[in-house]
Amino acid sequence: MPARSFKSAPHPLDPLTVDEVQAASHILQSHLRCADNGIKFKVIDLAEPPKALTLQYLYHNGSAPNRKARVYYHLKGSQTLLIAIINLNTSEVEKKYDAPASQGPVDWDEFELVNKACNEHPDVKAEIAKLKLPPNARVLNDPWAFGTDDANERRRLFQCYMYIALSEDGEANHYSLPIPLAPIFDAHTLELVELQKLPMGTDNEIDEETQPWDPVKPVEYSAGILGEDSFRKDLKPLQVIQPQGPSFKTFGRRVEWQKWSFTVGWTLREGPVLHDVLYDGRPLFYRVSMSEMTVPYGDPRTPYHRKQAFDLGDSGFGLTSNSLSLGCDCLGHIAYFNGVRVTGDGKPMVMPNVVCMHEIDDGIGWKHTNFRNQKSSVVRNRQLVIQCTATVANYEYILAFVLDQAANIHIEVRATGIVSTMPIRQGLQVPWGTVVAPGVLAVNHQHIFCARIDPILDGDSKNTIAYDECHPVVDEPDLDPYGCAFRVNTTPIETPGGYELDITKNRTFKIINEARINTVSGQPHGYKLHPVPSQMLMMGPKTFNFRRGIFTSKAIWVTKYNDDELWASGEFTNQSREDTGLALWANRNENVKNEDVVLWHSFGVTHITRPEDFPVMPIEKFVMSLKPANFFEENPSNDVPRSDQNLNKSTLHTAETHCHRPRGTEDTPKI
Amino acid sequence: MPARSFKSAPHPLDPLTVDEVQAASHILQSHLRCADNGIKFKVIDLAEPPKALTLQYLYHNGSAPNRKARVYYHLKGSQTLLIAIINLNTSEVEKKYDAPASQGPVDWDEFELVNKACNEHPDVKAEIAKLKLPPNARVLNDPWAFGTDDANERRRLFQCYMYIALSEDGEANHYSLPIPLAPIFDAHTLELVELQKLPMGTDNEIDEETQPWDPVKPVEYSAGILGEDSFRKDLKPLQVIQPQGPSFKTFGRRVEWQKWSFTVGWTLREGPVLHDVLYDGRPLFYRVSMSEMTVPYGDPRTPYHRKQAFDLGDSGFGLTSNSLSLGCDCLGHIAYFNGVRVTGDGKPMVMPNVVCMHEIDDGIGWKHTNFRNQKSSVVRNRQLVIQCTATVANYEYILAFVLDQAANIHIEVRATGIVSTMPIRQGLQVPWGTVVAPGVLAVNHQHIFCARIDPILDGDSKNTIAYDECHPVVDEPDLDPYGCAFRVNTTPIETPGGYELDITKNRTFKIINEARINTVSGQPHGYKLHPVPSQMLMMGPKTFNFRRGIFTSKAIWVTKYNDDELWASGEFTNQSREDTGLALWANRNENVKNEDVVLWHSFGVTHITRPEDFPVMPIEKFVMSLKPANFFEENPSNDVPRSDQNLNKSTLHTAETHCHRPRGTEDTPKI
Repeated sequence: MPARSFKSAPHPLDPLTVDEVQAASHILQSHLRCADNGIKFKVIDLAEPPKALTLQYLYHNGSAPNRKARVYYHLKGSQTLLIAIINLNTSEVEKKYDAPASQGPVDWDEFELVNKACNEHPDVKAEIAKLKLPPNARVLNDPWAFGTDDANERRRLFQCYMYIALSEDGEANHYSLPIPLAPIFDAHTLELVELQKLPMGTDNEIDEETQPWDPVKPVEYSAGILGEDSFRKDLKPLQVIQPQGPSFKTFGRRVEWQKWSFTVGWTLREGPVLHDVLYDGRPLFYRVSMSEMTVPYGDPRTPYHRKQAFDLGDSGFGLTSNSLSLGCDCLGHIAYFNGVRVTGDGKPMVMPNVVCMHEIDDGIGWKHTNFRNQKSSVVRNRQLVIQCTATVANYEYILAFVLDQAANIHIEVRATGIVSTMPIRQGLQVPWGTVVAPGVLAVNHQHIFCARIDPILDGDSKNTIAYDECHPVVDEPDLDPYGCAFRVNTTPIETPGGYELDITKNRTFKIINEARINTVSGQPHGYKLHPVPSQMLMMGPKTFNFRRGIFTSKAIWVTKYNDDELWASGEFTNQSREDTGLALWANRNENVKNEDVVLWHSFGVTHITRPEDFPVMPIEKFVMSLKPANFFEENPSNDVPRSDQNLNKSTLHTAETHCHRPRGTEDTPKI
Repeated sequence: MPARSFKSAPHPLDPLTVDEVQAASHILQSHLRCADNGIKFKVIDLAEPPKALTLQYLYHNGSAPNRKARVYYHLKGSQTLLIAIINLNTSEVEKKYDAPASQGPVDWDEFELVNKACNEHPDVKAEIAKLKLPPNARVLNDPWAFGTDDANERRRLFQCYMYIALSEDGEANHYSLPIPLAPIFDAHTLELVELQKLPMGTDNEIDEETQPWDPVKPVEYSAGILGEDSFRKDLKPLQVIQPQGPSFKTFGRRVEWQKWSFTVGWTLREGPVLHDVLYDGRPLFYRVSMSEMTVPYGDPRTPYHRKQAFDLGDSGFGLTSNSLSLGCDCLGHIAYFNGVRVTGDGKPMVMPNVVCMHEIDDGIGWKHTNFRNQKSSVVRNRQLVIQCTATVANYEYILAFVLDQAANIHIEVRATGIVSTMPIRQGLQVPWGTVVAPGVLAVNHQHIFCARIDPILDGDSKNTIAYDECHPVVDEPDLDPYGCAFRVNTTPIETPGGYELDITKNRTFKIINEARINTVSGQPHGYKLHPVPSQMLMMGPKTFNFRRGIFTSKAIWVTKYNDDELWASGEFTNQSREDTGLALWANRNENVKNEDVVLWHSFGVTHITRPEDFPVMPIEKFVMSLKPANFFEENPSNDVPRSDQNLNKSTLHTAETHCHRPRGTEDTPKI
């Protein structure tokens, strides 16, 4: 068995470094013989090497694949989206093509330009004047990627939803005072396309003349505005102390922790990605990622029907990731990883600390007590969390990959932030959402995520996706006289496509390696998926909502592996008209049984908004898991040291336990 | 508003004290004029006062209801189960009746007697001799409650599944070496009823003559047997430090934490129970409990068809609770609560530390970053965990009630321990389970739990259970030209019964108080259920499995409140033939809309066993939640102090981050 050859070099799936982004930018500029300002750069990210070459390199002593960059850009003055693949080893532009019918993702430069164009446009200002806002009002706008409602639209459009803030505080709620204006701008020309107004009543009707703003108090979350006195006083500090440091080791982006090893990848589009994941030296997954997420809103009134963000394809969980710092998102001992993006003029810009990694204690991992003698073994459930926070305008997604000592891998999403708000006439209600504050409507919506799992169980590229179902034995009285028996039926998936969960049958999808049989159970080595059962997209097959992202229509997708097929709805989702991802890949007539296969899981939530979600929403948490099934010959966490008070140093609560509270000191119940 | 009057006295729903158990025992003994050893006590637990009286006392200045005890007992020499309700205030036996057709739950005394009878019976010993066990073999047996297969059976039966252990170690795996004997004993007479043998092949066939044991190595979890060298070495300690102590206060069994207040009840049957739960002084729930749990096994071979434990009704999560100690089940600052049980001869026995309570940090509670200036507010998700571990012979259930600062309450179950094992001929497989070690079959089974939620939203006993569904708008092109709209339809439940989840419609059950309307949203105050979507019982309506616990057939149950209707399958489940709980209560023809109503949620798992579940199974975790929906006018955790490094004291990982591991020091991948 050859030793892995990347040890003293970057892993081939490491994200691009600052120098590599700089080099890609230079190579393209010199190739195009462009003046310094001739190219408008949008994205430079790693173009991942072919899987076959990478596996040859990692496991079979092949040579290191070339490092390559994928660049999205425009030539200044042109609206055509251009793509280049740059070979950083040969300094050559290896591939160059245009995508004139597609829109690239949003970049910060254009976001700022549209924002400014809207705020400064005289027509917009004239409308705002009619609102007769108080003198301290700051007018804000959030340019939104323009959801598709016209197959022929080719302009690059943003709809600017507008709000006011009445405080100069840096955390004044930007979404508590929506105003009924939503101008549309062309991001290439920065021209006002339409000064759209918003309905504030039950139907599409808008005020002929913009009416003066109906004053209302914003709902704030800023500690500065709320003031010290508004906070609960009885929360005592809780600290995580790791006196011997963390249990992980990092070697560049390579991490080793509790028999796991993996590379912390990162892209502007996806945020953190796990590559080349091994447990106890056994390869499990070539790549684990959040592939896409879309948010369609359920309000049919113009222009709300257009609200459908693809927050990975349109914006990017990497590009919108927060720079984290100690004490914010994690307790204990924290490692951070940086990202890099390119500026519009081709310079690399470090995005510091966009991924954090730390250990947590998740309670009991396993326990057994011998009831005959009360002797007990407890293993705690130590986990490693690799996490980012993406702030996509109003909303936050906290994406985490969580590994544990029982060889499980969990993908956890926490949805938080501020719900998207629209103005509503005070006292009214509409069927499309909930009034979460006076004058503020939070429209009901869905969030549908799609995780992508690229397995290489035991290092083999030939895997099978199968599902087990549990069926009762029926009408076999000789076999089952009391009717208690049930069987597990296994169905291997042979063709690509979308598949449904079926909880009534305990349908369980799993990845198996048919070539490796567990010596104890006689079953093939496998990993099973614990899904997040979710309502799928409600919008029908004719809608743009559906056609732009068919991953939203089924919980499970199976495709044959091809390089570059990473993103569920295709490469370019912004103003897309048709899905160019799973819609094509899951529709190919090819065998996927015992092949290089990819498993996709779509899940999410239908969010019926509540006042409790405002001003900032308490997390909704979704966790999907991949767990070994016949992959190991015993509990893989049987070797974890037992829980021990000498190390845990828990403390005992004794005060007050045996007295009663003196009369009259408890709050009177409010009924 | 009168102040709550229990402040300087026990809460009426506090569990019985040692003195009260003693008093109940004395009162019954003197009432029956029994000699000291004339009564065989099984259970003494609180007989809860009527809800109406309790609410009068708590909220309307009524007088304290009398303290009462429920006693299960036998007169020595009689097989008839007797029940007495003892009034501890008047020292009277208030009610006394028999239940000759029912079996009471298992008690430790009889468990030990049956265990001993089996181990010492000459016929059993003669069979064991035929196994020709090695001289160091210890023979063990686990008397199992006898699942029903005969409607006419009236004896109190135990089936003793037998195992051997080859080590004297106190934690030698008692379930790794099953032997093919399962004698049936009568617990009243201690007579051997049948020396049943176990099939080791694919059908019911058993060896005519018990064959010599086929030696095999046990799979161990004992640290003593495994030895120091077998443990992973790189797990560093992680400690939770609370330098200012915990955020909770306890007053006897009354707890106050982060606006919550509640009483930690406890029963032998249910383990911990939350009573009289308020948030910010507003009543939410009168009682929150795990009501029942059943485990039917899917193997039709005799006698496995009988394996169906009701681990609350037959044994009791309280009776089987572990006595906890610092450093085992929790980190940080821990409060413990005791339980009390009665011995067979009527003496109270303290069960120390059967419930633990502590705070945990569950990561981010909410977060928002103003992307314009990067200013960020993070609130951590501090939770309060009230937890017990029930060891029901081989298996462990960790039941926790988890409260958080966003006014959510979660009921979490972790299933762990050792799967129930049966012998199988080495090299064989059967369709009913997985071979988890040589000669060891772990039969596939279901665990179906039923949680019981008794709401009093805002202190009103008149609540309604309703469900929301999300339905797309279809064929209304004028209203919804782009097909994106969906509506939320609400259906109040008017009649008791069982109801199904429907994820395809996002069907969401909620408790609402129709009399209280949220001033912001215009919707009734409510709490919604986030269920655990699960396969329901596979065994059909004619089976004993089904008929003994119909809660297993639907995810949601709604009943009208009646005192003493606490246990989903009825009061006596041991060898029960018919469900006397929800089967009756959910079948009454009565209104439940805007009434005193109870919500029940059935959930669980179909466990297809894996070698990874042996010797001790890594936890499977199930979490159901109750979350406010239009109960508050904004995020109830908006007032939680923001996350702050000055208090969190996280530390930074810097070592190695920017170097690569030296060549040759990484493990060679195993492929």
